[in-house]
Amino acid sequence: MADIKLGIIGFGFMGHEHANMMATIEEIDLVAVCDNVPTQLEDAPEGVKKYDNMDDLVADTEINTVIISVPNPLHLEAVEKAARAGKDIICEKPAAMTVAEFDKMCEITKECGVRFTIHQQRRWDADFRTIKEVYDNHLVGKEYLVKSQLYGFNGNMHDWHIYPEMGGGMLYDWGVHLIDQILLMVDSKVISVYADMQNVINENVDDYFKIIFKFENGLTSEIELGTYYLTPKRAWFLGGTTGSAVIDGTFQAQGNVDGMIVRTKHLLENVPGKLTMTSAGPTRSFGEPEPGLLYEESLPKVNVCHRDFFVNYINAYYGKEELAIKLPQVRRVLCMMDAVRESAKTHQAVLFE
Amino acid sequence: MADIKLGIIGFGFMGHEHANMMATIEEIDLVAVCDNVPTQLEDAPEGVKKYDNMDDLVADTEINTVIISVPNPLHLEAVEKAARAGKDIICEKPAAMTVAEFDKMCEITKECGVRFTIHQQRRWDADFRTIKEVYDNHLVGKEYLVKSQLYGFNGNMHDWHIYPEMGGGMLYDWGVHLIDQILLMVDSKVISVYADMQNVINENVDDYFKIIFKFENGLTSEIELGTYYLTPKRAWFLGGTTGSAVIDGTFQAQGNVDGMIVRTKHLLENVPGKLTMTSAGPTRSFGEPEPGLLYEESLPKVNVCHRDFFVNYINAYYGKEELAIKLPQVRRVLCMMDAVRESAKTHQAVLFE
Repeated sequence: MADIKLGIIGFGFMGHEHANMMATIEEIDLVAVCDNVPTQLEDAPEGVKKYDNMDDLVADTEINTVIISVPNPLHLEAVEKAARAGKDIICEKPAAMTVAEFDKMCEITKECGVRFTIHQQRRWDADFRTIKEVYDNHLVGKEYLVKSQLYGFNGNMHDWHIYPEMGGGMLYDWGVHLIDQILLMVDSKVISVYADMQNVINENVDDYFKIIFKFENGLTSEIELGTYYLTPKRAWFLGGTTGSAVIDGTFQAQGNVDGMIVRTKHLLENVPGKLTMTSAGPTRSFGEPEPGLLYEESLPKVNVCHRDFFVNYINAYYGKEELAIKLPQVRRVLCMMDAVRESAKTHQAVLFE
Repeated sequence: MADIKLGIIGFGFMGHEHANMMATIEEIDLVAVCDNVPTQLEDAPEGVKKYDNMDDLVADTEINTVIISVPNPLHLEAVEKAARAGKDIICEKPAAMTVAEFDKMCEITKECGVRFTIHQQRRWDADFRTIKEVYDNHLVGKEYLVKSQLYGFNGNMHDWHIYPEMGGGMLYDWGVHLIDQILLMVDSKVISVYADMQNVINENVDDYFKIIFKFENGLTSEIELGTYYLTPKRAWFLGGTTGSAVIDGTFQAQGNVDGMIVRTKHLLENVPGKLTMTSAGPTRSFGEPEPGLLYEESLPKVNVCHRDFFVNYINAYYGKEELAIKLPQVRRVLCMMDAVRESAKTHQAVLFE
């Protein structure tokens, strides 16, 4: 029998994902699930208690920990009820609809003395961790640009994601991950945020965004996402003074990533005025490289999966390490999302930290 | 014998390019070239007069037209001398170092009643014209995003390009073309300009820039160039509500471009909460498409080359069409370049038109 006795509040798509995950984790016992839609509970795992409301679940004294995976606008209510009942809390992302809401959650959980963290599981995506490994070890020298790109073909979104009042749209859903990844990787203040957000196919929620952070250390980062880009892709570019690290594949959270580090054997040496050095028309700057000039190296290997979120949680529970997802980090991402919305609305950059 | 009698002022790399071009154009006679570096004149075409200074060339009464391909900071002096001597003028890009300088050129050439245009020959690049054709005919529906990307591997630049005081750096050299292309294509006011510029490898001049224009009609455009990106590429992306047009190849001003239009057979229909529709881990938005969902169409064919600049010039000379490169367009690009520099310096967007 494990020490961590879990209840899942909200048994929709992510609630089910969590139940599946728990089946693989010995250190956590799934005790109960709740949902106010009866059909959602039909396929709950055997032996697990079912509640049709969150009040009854948090009143269950067998439970000491909850995962909150109700719709976004209900996170605050669920956090408050669970905290008042003395439960430790793992809340789904986006943690809150607003920074003010999140501040309230932090206040309540602190007051109640319960553990509180957010399920930002994409910190353990393989593509991100690979690029972070390149960055942390400066494998491409002094970095000047990092680009994180995610492109899809669906156009539309799933069920509640199309409703702004539910926290729908891609900034809430994926922006919160993609921003979190960049801010985790780059340890520097953000000087300014510039963003474009559009509703290309969806009438009411954003399905395209581009976000540019200019960091104090000189690095520029760009995040771009489109659900109707039609060239399905998860790509990263990290450029530095000794090479470029490139990931360019379809979306794959785990396993090997498609990519490489590219370097050049030498830079251009001064070319006298008259020489045309390429066969690509009258340009001397952007022709084809001579064979062998550019060469490739393998990207570092990483070994991560989303389960690692819970491994960290369990270690933190036993005092062996700190929680990976810290509340000030979560708050900073939410502040950035506000800046993104403001910039996209005004077409001005938002000066930040 | 042709009516247009040409002198080339400045016989460096571009001066030679122009002389080579003239050998293919019946309607223009190359009469003379000048350069103050004697070695530059050694391989001037046979039968062509050689001067060691621009004053003597513009004093040559046989000449009625000049091409100015001296270093950028000398454009104004050359334009003024040629205009005062009554010569029609084709000036290399960037037309001027500043907007004020360009205004002076326009004033003088108007006062002297001479023809004046700028050699923005990349309006006849095949990749650009292909995307423009898609845009003009709305082949991807209502457009939301156009990206123009140019990446190289040289890092360093050629001779005078490394000196800021000569108008060096990539914004002057290539930015002036890439901005001109976008502004020619998109017939809408620019609401705001945001830009990042960096000196990645070069100490004194920009070798990386990203420029975002937000247009009044809703379209966002992005221009990105890097001389040390190490994945040599000339790429375009034009996304709209009925498809995406993609060009992704190495730089090739003429001939066929590598690309396609991608469309989808249908958008995502609403997916109930529990269904995991992809095999790419727990995301329902960005997995692999089902086979056959996305399909490709060919890009429209265009038939253009840089020689077309001179075909237009000759037609304008004979009153058959207007000059393609109009002075207010050139001025607008120079204003945008100022906005780009300001934005890159302040990390703020510049509100524009």
